[in-house]
Amino acid sequence: MNYSEVETDAEYVARLETGADWRAEIESLAAEVDAGAAWFTALGAVQDAELAFYDQNDLEYYTIDADEPLEVASCVGNVAWLDDERFAHTHVVLSDADGETISGHLNEATVWAGEVYMRVFEDDLVREYDETTALDLWL
Amino acid sequence: MNYSEVETDAEYVARLETGADWRAEIESLAAEVDAGAAWFTALGAVQDAELAFYDQNDLEYYTIDADEPLEVASCVGNVAWLDDERFAHTHVVLSDADGETISGHLNEATVWAGEVYMRVFEDDLVREYDETTALDLWL
Amino acid sequence: MNYSEVETDAEYVARLETGADWRAEIESLAAEVDAGAAWFTALGAVQDAELAFYDQNDLEYYTIDADEPLEVASCVGNVAWLDDERFAHTHVVLSDADGETISGHLNEATVWAGEVYMRVFEDDLVREYDETTALDLWL
Repeated sequence: MNYSEVETDAEYVARLETGADWRAEIESLAAEVDAGAAWFTALGAVQDAELAFYDQNDLEYYTIDADEPLEVASCVGNVAWLDDERFAHTHVVLSDADGETISGHLNEATVWAGEVYMRVFEDDLVREYDETTALDLWL
Repeated sequence: MNYSEVETDAEYVARLETGADWRAEIESLAAEVDAGAAWFTALGAVQDAELAFYDQNDLEYYTIDADEPLEVASCVGNVAWLDDERFAHTHVVLSDADGETISGHLNEATVWAGEVYMRVFEDDLVREYDETTALDLWL
Repeated sequence: MNYSEVETDAEYVARLETGADWRAEIESLAAEVDAGAAWFTALGAVQDAELAFYDQNDLEYYTIDADEPLEVASCVGNVAWLDDERFAHTHVVLSDADGETISGHLNEATVWAGEVYMRVFEDDLVREYDETTALDLWL
């Protein structure tokens, strides 16, 4: 296991804009507060979503479309540099009117309402290609 | 996006009382430590639960009943003022004996066991009516 | 409700080792940084998993096997002492290629990739037998 002690520079709460993209909003927040590394949790609801599942044999992501309003029952993720852009690695749990649940890696989702708590770390995290998983990982 | 830097006054861990209401317990904790704003994550199990789904067309919540013991696989939320009361906006992911999962906005649930981590912020958060979503939102 | 104010000694981010056990990795991190109490959230993917559901009538855990690659859509937990060992009480939400979700208490899982944020508290948490639930609880 690779680990690193982090120091928190600042903490934020944010309300995501209705109609905007969930992940882009989090990346915007990171950019506005000049974050090179951050950790967040969030909750809310979206108007639709595209999730992704990483196939560990094919070593690629396949998308899952959800074209309906869903609660964001959970959202956990972090912000790091990926190819010189801030990338918010975001996993979500989404639920429909019956409580039925789909979840996974979030590509995009249209915000209905979103409440985020973010901690910004002093030192940057940078994603680099990992040979074993073919994913871009930090540390 | 609206956002605000927050300062943490204090952090707490809590064990929720078996037989009490999950959300009311979190609101009690907030009241006991005089919190006007807080963020929390939690895990545990409940004896039953009532979830809710917000219908983005009808602009109202519809309830989902779960009358059986369930694990609380995830719980994320925050405390803010709503009509002069502390309100713990709480989303949960719940699972049964087969791991089958329902999730959403938590109205109430009878605690079996609950472990909570809460950060209390210096400045209050206040929910106000939002025209676009007909929800009470802060910031 | 029992609660306690906590002071954070240090914060860490960690990348779990591909092929190792998810929970053991978190316990290793806790041991390496000498943590007697910690709170964490995490995300990632696993190659397989064994969950457990606590039967509130029988007062015992029954296991749920998931022998396939799954995303870790959410992971919330804490580290405390249990019988003089560090125990990472870990709840997860897991999803497959269709976004279908199972969740619950995590016994073990083979890491594909895992990203963890952990806060280590100054004072230890110790689990002790609770008569009402027959679980080992802290506070």
